[in-house]
Amino acid sequence: MEAECGIPAVPREEVAAKRASVGQENGQNSRGKGTAAAEDGKPMDGISAVIPGWFSEISPMWAGKAYSLKVEEILFQGKSEYQNVMVFQSSTYGNVLVLDGVIQVTERDECACQEMITHLPLCSIPNPRKVLVIGGGDGGVLHEVSRYSFVEQIDICEIDDLVVDVSKKFFPHLAIGFEDPRVNLHIGDGVAFLKSVPEGTYDAIIVDSSDLIDPAQELFEKPFFESVARSLRPGGVVCTQAESIWLHMHIIEDIVNVRRQIFKGSVNYAWTTVPTYPSGVIGFMLCSTEGPPIDFQNPVYNIDEDEKSNESKGPLKFYNSEIHSAAFCLPSFAKRVIEFQTN
Amino acid sequence: MEAECGIPAVPREEVAAKRASVGQENGQNSRGKGTAAAEDGKPMDGISAVIPGWFSEISPMWAGKAYSLKVEEILFQGKSEYQNVMVFQSSTYGNVLVLDGVIQVTERDECACQEMITHLPLCSIPNPRKVLVIGGGDGGVLHEVSRYSFVEQIDICEIDDLVVDVSKKFFPHLAIGFEDPRVNLHIGDGVAFLKSVPEGTYDAIIVDSSDLIDPAQELFEKPFFESVARSLRPGGVVCTQAESIWLHMHIIEDIVNVRRQIFKGSVNYAWTTVPTYPSGVIGFMLCSTEGPPIDFQNPVYNIDEDEKSNESKGPLKFYNSEIHSAAFCLPSFAKRVIEFQTN
Repeated sequence: MEAECGIPAVPREEVAAKRASVGQENGQNSRGKGTAAAEDGKPMDGISAVIPGWFSEISPMWAGKAYSLKVEEILFQGKSEYQNVMVFQSSTYGNVLVLDGVIQVTERDECACQEMITHLPLCSIPNPRKVLVIGGGDGGVLHEVSRYSFVEQIDICEIDDLVVDVSKKFFPHLAIGFEDPRVNLHIGDGVAFLKSVPEGTYDAIIVDSSDLIDPAQELFEKPFFESVARSLRPGGVVCTQAESIWLHMHIIEDIVNVRRQIFKGSVNYAWTTVPTYPSGVIGFMLCSTEGPPIDFQNPVYNIDEDEKSNESKGPLKFYNSEIHSAAFCLPSFAKRVIEFQTN
Repeated sequence: MEAECGIPAVPREEVAAKRASVGQENGQNSRGKGTAAAEDGKPMDGISAVIPGWFSEISPMWAGKAYSLKVEEILFQGKSEYQNVMVFQSSTYGNVLVLDGVIQVTERDECACQEMITHLPLCSIPNPRKVLVIGGGDGGVLHEVSRYSFVEQIDICEIDDLVVDVSKKFFPHLAIGFEDPRVNLHIGDGVAFLKSVPEGTYDAIIVDSSDLIDPAQELFEKPFFESVARSLRPGGVVCTQAESIWLHMHIIEDIVNVRRQIFKGSVNYAWTTVPTYPSGVIGFMLCSTEGPPIDFQNPVYNIDEDEKSNESKGPLKFYNSEIHSAAFCLPSFAKRVIEFQTN
């Protein structure tokens, strides 16, 4: 299937096959245990699977291309109930966190995704007070949320405590986010957590998950977003990672379609540059519940000019109000598809 | 050396060493003949240098990371007077043009750079009539320039006719750009070509070159840009590729500094997403000569709404007026450096 730009999209059936294969290999439901294998049968940790001394990220979700980082030292390799977890020190990208063979964080470029996924939603509404982070177990998003002195409560629900542990050990400048006294850490399933939350609790929810295969698969599905909508106050906002416009337009089509059904406020797509993510970009879906109108593209607050934030956490490395607005400007091949979905 | 964002920059000395090594290996001046060798001594074509059956792009200009594409078939391998030229059919990125081991064009994402490097400058001035392209031997930029019905003359100076030949054979939808009757192709050195051009000839010059090592090295240096400025009319514009904000901030600093000395109109930096370029982005320097003021960020013409263009060439795949403006919005770590240089 070719997208409008003549760019071959990753077929839906490949993504579905990937989900199924993880379940089958594990011999259980899609949240089962076991070490997932790469398509060539080698371990999915990616080390030395392709280039000796390098980590290579290969997946059917980005078929035919591989991103590799030179490894100085493997710092941690382990397996939780949910996924393979690895941390290595790279030659030029700092420490790198890998979950099931997919790069989640590198010290060199983490600022881009962490700052954008936090400040795109939080700067779109006045005075958010209660914020929920689902996923984000490295602590980086918490660190960014804590810049807002008027935020009173920061809940985080991360399914895998191993991620929290390795982050505290190997990414201390991210895990420092856990030390803010307003943070309440819950280890568990985000879907179940939301069911326990009183209606209309949060001003903002940030879903900082891995890709749409386990353990994050449910975090892309309709029932989850119905719970998210219920947990937000009227005019509350949710921001989720939303894949790549270069690789996943058909998935993004579906995402926009589903969100439009559930969220009766604004529904918008933004994107930014992240060198170590597949195709070098990551997208964000921003949605609001029915209530005070929200114009996601034009921030109502400038966190980059917040003096308390700059003094206590240092200046922002990536986010600013201009790049906030710019993030909503899409290349034509993506704009045509997404605008069709939202109209 | 760490840039402001804590991101280690590629040391200047590495880039200089790369230039020197090409000259030494060739046994001549930096434009000498010979097959450049990779740092491990293997041929620099990148095929099977790292992953059997894959092409890997490795360079000290982006140390510690490698981008690899799966190869279906090598379509061409050859050597001109200036560089190694290879074309292969990739599994999921279409045909790929590689010069001296560095990806220049893939069919899948070429629209991004070709459209932005052309329309950022051409939409910044009213009614450009005479346009010069330096480099761009694949023809893609010519194809984009030819969308403008009011352009009367399109000169192109490409140093390597082998690039033109392989493009006509393997990238026909780009090389179709050569067929426009307004196009005048000159095979030769861009520096020498400009010296022969009467002062103030062009409305716009687009420098679509490879990176700042031979054979493109001179196209990044001060004497060349003095010739460019002389060849432009007052209020004429030049657009060049300008590396990556993630990898080359110190090089960009130098570029901005030099351009500010030469161009007395506007000097601005823009960037966009190109998955197959190192770090997934490419930058553009836009400069104008003294004359009618130019606001590069706000286009004066909407080529994406030009009916003749859309009918004859098809709709633009990437560029539109919104992403034109957005391209000038920089992440904070880059903004701080570039604004310091331009103020």
